[in-house]
Amino acid sequence: MNTRSTTRRNFLKIAALGAAGVGLGLKGLASGRQEIPGESPAMPRQQGQRSVMSLACEPLNIVRIGIIGLGMRGMEAVERLLYVEGIEIRAVCDVLPDRVAQAQKIVVDRGNKEPAGYSAGVNDWMNLCRREDIDLVYACTPWELHTPNAVFAMRQGKHAAVEVPAALTLSQCWELVDTAEQTRRHCMMLENCCYDFFELATLNMARKGVLGEIMHAECAYIHDLRWLKFDREHGYYNMWRLNYSMAHTGNPYPTHGLGPVAQIMGINRGDRMEYLTSTSTNQVGMSLYAAKTFGNDSPEARQTYELGDMNTTLVRTHRGKTIMIQHDTTSSRPYSRIHLISGTLGIAQKWPDQRIALEPDPHHWLTEDKLDQLLQEYEHPLARRVGEKAKEVGGHGGMDFIMDWRLIQCLRSGLPLDQDVYDAAAWSSIVELSEMSVRNASQHVEVPDFTRGEWESHPPLGIVE
Amino acid sequence: MNTRSTTRRNFLKIAALGAAGVGLGLKGLASGRQEIPGESPAMPRQQGQRSVMSLACEPLNIVRIGIIGLGMRGMEAVERLLYVEGIEIRAVCDVLPDRVAQAQKIVVDRGNKEPAGYSAGVNDWMNLCRREDIDLVYACTPWELHTPNAVFAMRQGKHAAVEVPAALTLSQCWELVDTAEQTRRHCMMLENCCYDFFELATLNMARKGVLGEIMHAECAYIHDLRWLKFDREHGYYNMWRLNYSMAHTGNPYPTHGLGPVAQIMGINRGDRMEYLTSTSTNQVGMSLYAAKTFGNDSPEARQTYELGDMNTTLVRTHRGKTIMIQHDTTSSRPYSRIHLISGTLGIAQKWPDQRIALEPDPHHWLTEDKLDQLLQEYEHPLARRVGEKAKEVGGHGGMDFIMDWRLIQCLRSGLPLDQDVYDAAAWSSIVELSEMSVRNASQHVEVPDFTRGEWESHPPLGIVE
Repeated sequence: MNTRSTTRRNFLKIAALGAAGVGLGLKGLASGRQEIPGESPAMPRQQGQRSVMSLACEPLNIVRIGIIGLGMRGMEAVERLLYVEGIEIRAVCDVLPDRVAQAQKIVVDRGNKEPAGYSAGVNDWMNLCRREDIDLVYACTPWELHTPNAVFAMRQGKHAAVEVPAALTLSQCWELVDTAEQTRRHCMMLENCCYDFFELATLNMARKGVLGEIMHAECAYIHDLRWLKFDREHGYYNMWRLNYSMAHTGNPYPTHGLGPVAQIMGINRGDRMEYLTSTSTNQVGMSLYAAKTFGNDSPEARQTYELGDMNTTLVRTHRGKTIMIQHDTTSSRPYSRIHLISGTLGIAQKWPDQRIALEPDPHHWLTEDKLDQLLQEYEHPLARRVGEKAKEVGGHGGMDFIMDWRLIQCLRSGLPLDQDVYDAAAWSSIVELSEMSVRNASQHVEVPDFTRGEWESHPPLGIVE
Repeated sequence: MNTRSTTRRNFLKIAALGAAGVGLGLKGLASGRQEIPGESPAMPRQQGQRSVMSLACEPLNIVRIGIIGLGMRGMEAVERLLYVEGIEIRAVCDVLPDRVAQAQKIVVDRGNKEPAGYSAGVNDWMNLCRREDIDLVYACTPWELHTPNAVFAMRQGKHAAVEVPAALTLSQCWELVDTAEQTRRHCMMLENCCYDFFELATLNMARKGVLGEIMHAECAYIHDLRWLKFDREHGYYNMWRLNYSMAHTGNPYPTHGLGPVAQIMGINRGDRMEYLTSTSTNQVGMSLYAAKTFGNDSPEARQTYELGDMNTTLVRTHRGKTIMIQHDTTSSRPYSRIHLISGTLGIAQKWPDQRIALEPDPHHWLTEDKLDQLLQEYEHPLARRVGEKAKEVGGHGGMDFIMDWRLIQCLRSGLPLDQDVYDAAAWSSIVELSEMSVRNASQHVEVPDFTRGEWESHPPLGIVE
């Protein structure tokens, strides 16, 4: 443990020096219990506040839903949720009234009672949360609102499901955890990629020991979003995503890649992310795109953007495993989440194409036939159960529907959720931790233990049936 | 430059603290000018010692070669070099007499004069270096001998070509640089992967701007060598490679991946590696293999190995580019050097298979036909010139021959070498720097500037003709 304790001492110095010279580092480092991430013991739980690990709540016959945020993701959610049995959309909310009207029309056209509409200003979503006839608040708002939405919803006694990332700062991560523990409500981050077919199959394979002990994984969100970030008309409301990249670096969007990998590796459940380092390239891609699209002298081209083109973050877990997480939304390259799982008996990876190699012939990728056979053999129970319908309904090839279906199934059966508030916090904590490391020249940063030590005794997520 | 200076101050603390708690860190940190790698100004050059950047030496009509180390690589080199015009193998050396006899026979059977043989003990290689009739010492010895071989050869007025890595410590890296500058002899690390066909093609494409500005690259040495490391009969002499992995972690073998990437990105020539962080998994793979092969109670299985299964090292350059370097010689997975080059106009990668995507359609990989066309269009001049013969001669598919051919061409023409002593030092420095970072819980470590500032004005390696 010599290295660990050395690490700790080092980190104190780094934190101090980092805070001296670095804006975001300072912000992160100065915020109360995050002074030294993962180092200062987590704030003691308040009276009556206790763990929500494996939280099971009263089964709901019908899940009554209120949806906040009816942009790209939100409107898709309305369409999709209506295909799930045992739900009612009771209320919808957006700052744009026509969005609300459109959502109400979708619900009615599908033969349901018209949901109440909320669009009276930027805080009207709170009134939606206050309704007595809602069990679940489903938020597809801009990043900054995810934690406020979830926290307020839980305080009103509602379960909360929020889009990714669930939080942007370590303080928000702790706020989610504390609120869930105080209200004993579910708080799920809607990490849809955990429910994609190959990811589910590799979870199944990992649990059945096909890949041996998982030692290393790689994941990413590599998706050229330049056009969308700069599109005032069809892009993000008030250009919120572009604005975020003006002020922040690191990896602002880590969970699509990390979620499935973290479940497979038992993060928060038998192991935990202990420390990370993060390195970004300079920003070049967005400025080039802006100059080409709007002209060299356009405000978009003259604007500075903090977000580097490529960010690579390296996580080491307490059990000595490593996870590489990348983020690149500005480079000229094909989409990838990598999803590479390397174990002592074989390796699986999804991008640039699906490949698996296994003992006793681990040096050669399986032929297409053998790969198909294997993926059929280890097709995940959820995929087998609702995969076909999911593909019909659509939503990123079906994974969005499987996620919604599974969430509703758990709420109706009183089961713990696959993704709990500790997952939401740990996976989202990469946002600020990676930025702190990048702004400190890739300095080592420790990852807080949001489970307050319970990760050690908690069994990993099983093969969900 | 706020971050940089913060970094510097941070690093001083880390160095101090790291040294307090960590063996290798301390060793590395305490060794003279490496006290704070890259921070303390490089030792002033001695009287008459000056830069060997672009060193050109007297053209040699015939290159007279002495070969040290006749193991796997050395014997291949004897076979291969005999196919290159304008060389004579004057002497061969190995601690095993039968190896020397075998090499002599090969040379004679190919119609040449028998080379002198050296096998009188572990220091007889020095006598080979002392010969008057040798221009080039070509060393294929175990890792620990590469720097001693090269330094002693240069001190005897010979050019030195040594296998990879050229050095195992920062002190050895500086010793190579200082000796080359004092003796004004060539010192080339035999990084054959710089001469592989796809790597050469991407160098060509990069120089012609096809990929735009290169922002990020990934490279690796992922090669399951468990059987070879544990094979007393056919493996490495006295199990030197296994022994090294008992005592060391980090990335002991970074150059096969890094070499081609560093040339493409202009490392030491317009840019330089500024700092890195490195993270390793625990070691599991070798112990499992040993237990399975020799039994749970075998010495091999009970032995502890410091080298983690997977090491990932993240480098940031002065110009804000990033390089990810991986090392894994123990996991059950197919061979890969990755060789991913990501630029503002497109991306190329060689493993798991050759792919390129380019503007104006960067979100889709080129079809096989288009890829073949492109690779033909940008086939490297060296490949075009000697590629066919290289494939006949063999040696990792031909790259070994292209490397030898090019080395001899430069020596016979009095041209600077493609890989100089600064490249050998910078690429090899990853060995100790990565181990220091790993043993300090992935702490930031600065990379020394072996060019003493000349990287800034030096043009990148051109398209070699």
